[in-house]
Amino acid sequence: MHHCWLNGTITDVPSARFHFNDLGVLRGYGLFDYFQTYNGRPFQWDWYWERFERSARILRIPCPLTKDQTRQVVEELFALQGGQDCAFRFLLTGGFTDDSISMHTPNLIIVTEDLHHDKPGEHENGIKVMTYNYVRDMPMLKSIDYKHLLILRQDFERKGVSDVLFHKDGYISELSRSNVFIFKNGRLITPMDDILEGITRKTVLQLAQPDFSIEVRPVTLQETLNAEEVFTTSTTKRVLPITGIDKYVIGNGKIGPQTKILLDRINELVKNW
Amino acid sequence: MHHCWLNGTITDVPSARFHFNDLGVLRGYGLFDYFQTYNGRPFQWDWYWERFERSARILRIPCPLTKDQTRQVVEELFALQGGQDCAFRFLLTGGFTDDSISMHTPNLIIVTEDLHHDKPGEHENGIKVMTYNYVRDMPMLKSIDYKHLLILRQDFERKGVSDVLFHKDGYISELSRSNVFIFKNGRLITPMDDILEGITRKTVLQLAQPDFSIEVRPVTLQETLNAEEVFTTSTTKRVLPITGIDKYVIGNGKIGPQTKILLDRINELVKNW
Repeated sequence: MHHCWLNGTITDVPSARFHFNDLGVLRGYGLFDYFQTYNGRPFQWDWYWERFERSARILRIPCPLTKDQTRQVVEELFALQGGQDCAFRFLLTGGFTDDSISMHTPNLIIVTEDLHHDKPGEHENGIKVMTYNYVRDMPMLKSIDYKHLLILRQDFERKGVSDVLFHKDGYISELSRSNVFIFKNGRLITPMDDILEGITRKTVLQLAQPDFSIEVRPVTLQETLNAEEVFTTSTTKRVLPITGIDKYVIGNGKIGPQTKILLDRINELVKNW
Repeated sequence: MHHCWLNGTITDVPSARFHFNDLGVLRGYGLFDYFQTYNGRPFQWDWYWERFERSARILRIPCPLTKDQTRQVVEELFALQGGQDCAFRFLLTGGFTDDSISMHTPNLIIVTEDLHHDKPGEHENGIKVMTYNYVRDMPMLKSIDYKHLLILRQDFERKGVSDVLFHKDGYISELSRSNVFIFKNGRLITPMDDILEGITRKTVLQLAQPDFSIEVRPVTLQETLNAEEVFTTSTTKRVLPITGIDKYVIGNGKIGPQTKILLDRINELVKNW
């Protein structure tokens, strides 16, 4: 049974009192963040908090808790998990409104969720993605705006893909909920613009630093299709190979040796977190 | 006391059972519509329904009720209003989810709200708006995505404006929740692209048809600033003059004579609806 903290009250999730009269529901005015614990410790807590606070600042929704207060809530909720590692979702909306538009007191929800489990074979065989001409609206912040993904994913099964790669004017930006990297002539390259700066992206850049040349710059769709290796990074995916883009096979259709090095490194990092 | 219909159950609004575990809240995956009754009859019911259904189709959220079933719910809720005219909001989201992303059963909410009341003097003196470089994402549908407005409106009071006029690449599209028209050399002109096709816009075009030359075409910001008259249309605003855009005064800062004709016509139409 998962628990949540909603505006100061901790309950089990089904008992949480909410109402549709919320600016998240009525006006899509909300943001979130999401992280996991390893060995009972929130992964990269400082970075996740910093990003959550930045998203709130850009959307201009005041965050009702300080970093320390939030950490305390996280510890309380974690204790209710009986020592099991879990995921945390933070959700901050404009709050309940009396006229469908005015913000009064934001709603902050902190909720535990099951850990994500890797699909069997996924990290060896990689995933296939479709491309889609789009740049997220305000990509630098983790808003709740995923309408394009929710539309597109209804075709994923039919298309044999599990995610979507956004591109615009010839340049790629990111997947629906994760960053993208390519290897080209042994150099590790990742887009710099129109992305959410992922915490796992930042972690992987650090892990790669000692042994790889790194380029953070605009990346074309064409060089992505021609790359030696392509992979995506996120909290749940860690380092996950992309072996198919539309009808193109990337590399030999399996995880590439350079991607494997980074996957091993992040697996080692979270194992000992 | 207003009432709502939520997935088959009618209750007073505060008693409605909802949960944050909804794809509207978690993923901004929702749409809505909004209309008023006049003399106990929903205004332009056929057109509003058609638009609601179109929004749902584009967002690929199945609507759980047919047009006739929905009309019956509207009548039941109206009866609970004791014969008072009111507004109706339809809200359709991706529904509750068990993994924060998968859609199962959509949530449909039909709720009555207070009628909007004109601000004193507003239709005589018009409103002032600020400009903002932006086109709504998927403007043809009435999604719940209003994050830019919710950010911008925190500065409205300081800027002395009450709304925002979106423009991009030199062309205007719409206000945050309403359409825009200009009069130029006696011709009535309104943008054709990147807009939500408002029901009041359509009504006004019909009312103008007998006496005005009409152009539905791309409209530049420059010609808007130089227009003889500018006005906006929406369910709640009907025909509302815009007399200031950023630092520019439009016309003589009062409702113009041509706008006045259209305002009178729509007031007459709703009075006798």
